[in-house]
Amino acid sequence: MTFRAPVSEYEFLLNHVVGYGAIPATDRFAEATPDVVSAILNEAGKMCDEVMAPLQRNGDLTPAFLENGVLRTSPGFGDGFKAIADGGWIGMSAPEEHGGMGLPLTVATAVNEMMAGACLSLQLAPLMTQGQIEALEHHAPDAIKELYLPKLISGEWSGTMNLTEPQAGSDVGALSSKAEPNGDGTYAVSGQKIFISWGDNDFCGNICHLVLARLPDGVPGTKGISLFLVPKFLPDADGNPGAANDLKVVSLEHKMGLHGSPTCVMQYDGATGWLIGEEHGGMAAMFTMMNNARLGVGGQGVGAGEGAYQHALAYALERKQGKTASGTIADHADVRRMLMEMKADLFASRAILLACAQAIDMQTATGAKDWAARAAFLTPIAKAFGTDTGIRVAETGVQVHGGMGFIEESGAAQYYRDVRVTAIYEGTNGIQSMDLVARKMMDGGEMGFALIDEIEEQAERARTTHPNMAESVWQACESLREATEWLAAQQDMQDRFAGSVPYLRAFARVLGGHYHLAAAMADQGGPREKLARFYITRMLPEHGSLLAHAQAGAAGAFALTLDELAG
Amino acid sequence: MTFRAPVSEYEFLLNHVVGYGAIPATDRFAEATPDVVSAILNEAGKMCDEVMAPLQRNGDLTPAFLENGVLRTSPGFGDGFKAIADGGWIGMSAPEEHGGMGLPLTVATAVNEMMAGACLSLQLAPLMTQGQIEALEHHAPDAIKELYLPKLISGEWSGTMNLTEPQAGSDVGALSSKAEPNGDGTYAVSGQKIFISWGDNDFCGNICHLVLARLPDGVPGTKGISLFLVPKFLPDADGNPGAANDLKVVSLEHKMGLHGSPTCVMQYDGATGWLIGEEHGGMAAMFTMMNNARLGVGGQGVGAGEGAYQHALAYALERKQGKTASGTIADHADVRRMLMEMKADLFASRAILLACAQAIDMQTATGAKDWAARAAFLTPIAKAFGTDTGIRVAETGVQVHGGMGFIEESGAAQYYRDVRVTAIYEGTNGIQSMDLVARKMMDGGEMGFALIDEIEEQAERARTTHPNMAESVWQACESLREATEWLAAQQDMQDRFAGSVPYLRAFARVLGGHYHLAAAMADQGGPREKLARFYITRMLPEHGSLLAHAQAGAAGAFALTLDELAG
Repeated sequence: MTFRAPVSEYEFLLNHVVGYGAIPATDRFAEATPDVVSAILNEAGKMCDEVMAPLQRNGDLTPAFLENGVLRTSPGFGDGFKAIADGGWIGMSAPEEHGGMGLPLTVATAVNEMMAGACLSLQLAPLMTQGQIEALEHHAPDAIKELYLPKLISGEWSGTMNLTEPQAGSDVGALSSKAEPNGDGTYAVSGQKIFISWGDNDFCGNICHLVLARLPDGVPGTKGISLFLVPKFLPDADGNPGAANDLKVVSLEHKMGLHGSPTCVMQYDGATGWLIGEEHGGMAAMFTMMNNARLGVGGQGVGAGEGAYQHALAYALERKQGKTASGTIADHADVRRMLMEMKADLFASRAILLACAQAIDMQTATGAKDWAARAAFLTPIAKAFGTDTGIRVAETGVQVHGGMGFIEESGAAQYYRDVRVTAIYEGTNGIQSMDLVARKMMDGGEMGFALIDEIEEQAERARTTHPNMAESVWQACESLREATEWLAAQQDMQDRFAGSVPYLRAFARVLGGHYHLAAAMADQGGPREKLARFYITRMLPEHGSLLAHAQAGAAGAFALTLDELAG
Repeated sequence: MTFRAPVSEYEFLLNHVVGYGAIPATDRFAEATPDVVSAILNEAGKMCDEVMAPLQRNGDLTPAFLENGVLRTSPGFGDGFKAIADGGWIGMSAPEEHGGMGLPLTVATAVNEMMAGACLSLQLAPLMTQGQIEALEHHAPDAIKELYLPKLISGEWSGTMNLTEPQAGSDVGALSSKAEPNGDGTYAVSGQKIFISWGDNDFCGNICHLVLARLPDGVPGTKGISLFLVPKFLPDADGNPGAANDLKVVSLEHKMGLHGSPTCVMQYDGATGWLIGEEHGGMAAMFTMMNNARLGVGGQGVGAGEGAYQHALAYALERKQGKTASGTIADHADVRRMLMEMKADLFASRAILLACAQAIDMQTATGAKDWAARAAFLTPIAKAFGTDTGIRVAETGVQVHGGMGFIEESGAAQYYRDVRVTAIYEGTNGIQSMDLVARKMMDGGEMGFALIDEIEEQAERARTTHPNMAESVWQACESLREATEWLAAQQDMQDRFAGSVPYLRAFARVLGGHYHLAAAMADQGGPREKLARFYITRMLPEHGSLLAHAQAGAAGAFALTLDELAG
């Protein structure tokens, strides 16, 4: 199996579907012209194909492990991380003053997705570090920025996020880790954190933890939480890693997949930390980073799906079975259906991902509230639909492999196992959906309706060249409008929540139709028009049943008592 | 986690939904009254809960392995198999003259499903043996029956099916194993077979292989294939295991799940075998067994789904997170939605399974062609929908667990990994769907329309008590009728095949609505009526998008060239 980063797909999407041109039209990103972006994508793609993809199986076959308290990573991962760092891919969108490339997040999103397709478990290490860079950039005091950012951006050091505790998962406000002032401006951080991705490694000089904990005067719940930077080694006077901090990796989780990424239980015993952001302002600081991390995880889903798709297609093209035109299973109608579904959904989820990233860039470049609202609305959709697509595509990839799909040596199963976590971490997809129908609709659904208007406007324009497809998208969008009105009118949040997952998926389905339609207009008579027709004819109709479910309210979902559920 | 076999759910389904009463009304099964069946289900359920369920994790944590060519099974599996055998559960539906219970297959199907829910990898061993018993019963010469059946039924010996070869998977006709007459009525069987479930074990005195191979004068393709019984040890004059036969387990597969079930590569080097059925009649003999094996695998899907559901519900009831009525996540609206979807789909798939088994029993008891046609039509639906449901339920079960779902210790991941193979083996679900729209519709779809009429008749009757639900089911069924007419009219099989998977699923969705409606009528004001309303309101609508896909034809699925798929 040879992975090829989907560079040309990205070029097409950026230039013909999501309107990337608006980004280099701003002062902030004037240098990120399509030509520059193409060169960058090609270079990153080469690194993905040549350096990262060969490491994919290593992580699964030789997981990271603890040896006398020292974490040993999978073979080749250290060199792989160095190659990512040396290419500048960790600090792609970080400020140039600290050694970053200052590129739009849209470009970083594309590169991150390609890296995820090549080797998901390794890609998670720079992804976590990027999140930390962003949090420090926005919330850290200057001295911290000057010390840490260059080292994180160069990949000399790496970063993690420490939120979860055994009793505090989706309910972050229930955490019990504590931070006591040391009197010298630092804090003593204590507590246990679980599910810490890349909580340690053996290839960076220092591991920097961002830890949520409560100050002595912190109130219960999310409003009493503060954020601290707690490095594995305390920087000495020259800023180099010095004395070991009072923290350790207690154990590694035994997971279904993503074996190359060590998931740590971390113990902090009065470890020295620095406050990041305001006292009791930890959630705000964390949210800056979490929104983009959610987009990043959406990209993990799409990327892993791309890897699984390429893997399945390669198998279908070589597996001879039955009498078909090519002699291979790729010419069986049902196999074609599967491959087309995979490809069409990857296109849709990737377009949504880029549209979301673009909104963030436009917000950064212009400061306009509309772009911020658009980014906020699209983020949960990009995360949940991207990861659900990755899971479905990987599952279909197993099916394309037939019996070999269940055998680990084929590699299909690894994609399926690895990608499964993306629907869970960084806020489960249920949490994303609740976020969409509650927080992101607090204004009555304004941004949802703005997107709906945009979809219908394009559909109107498309009627001349693609009347049938345009009508299908327009009709689907009208159903989405009705459902959005219904949801926004529900005062009891339970009525929104009970249908939130189908609603989010329906919104993604319709957005997918919108971007496929744009592709059809840009590639008339070409393969992307044909793929769009497949999607709009066969996959877009799913919105109907999803919207019926979305508007059914909470009473039916709670109709059985807990005893009756068990009976 | 404590598994409880869903005995009362089966009692309700048999007595109030699928019309079990017709079975004991026949001479053949007169003794299998509802009271007798209840007693049997309770006894089997007790064995599942107490003996099999505790073995579930053993198989995953300590997979079977080869030690100097000797297969060692997972801890406790030998005792577990013995308990199954001693309870009479291997020979439930086998003839009494050879030591079986002579029960209807409907009852055996229920028990098999409960065993699958308790421990899928162990359950596969008796399931394979049951298939062999059935094949021998129908096709073996009397001397073979008298020697082998009592030992297989008692569990002293076990049985396997050997179809697949590396180049011959779904295309069985491509197999190259050979059988040469020895001149004494036996044959020398040679070749390599792969994916042989429970190809060996260390708890039965003999392992009996049914092997497909080609006689010297066998024509290429499926018409030149014969079936042979090839035991691990050749029976001596007293019928006891004697000299070792010329066959061996070459290796075990490294699989994504079902680790407790050894999947063997078998090598036959002139092994002594006995012809079962006619020369070149191997496929016919195999099909007898395969149809019921397909039903059995459908039951594996439903059973594993039941296990995953109970596991997820137990977690939801104990996991405290966020502010809800009970303090647990079970009161979050989205978790309720997931649990309700799981339960509603398990009900639907279980009802379809039983309706199929019942048709087989009625065919057995009455010899009526209509029942045979009904069984043939329902078999691919029961297999594919049962296993797809198992997979979806297990996937949702992982999601209910949140972060813990990805951690192996929670057990949720095992259900997800184990059940995945059920959509692949015994004919992939794609093959099932092709079977449904081609072979099972060769008569123009007659049996499909008979089922559709039956669904609409019940919906008409239900209008007095459940007008809205009845109308929804009736409308869905009309759409199914149109799609069935469209499919049956397509002369180019590719046009049927390109939509066969969505069509099969839509048929199952509507059948599910039908059985839920029956439950609502039988349990007015009760939890099953409420569950039916949930299913019909929120899940049945999926039929619409599936049927749009089913009627889209092959051209769109083949619109992209293979190069364009890769581009």
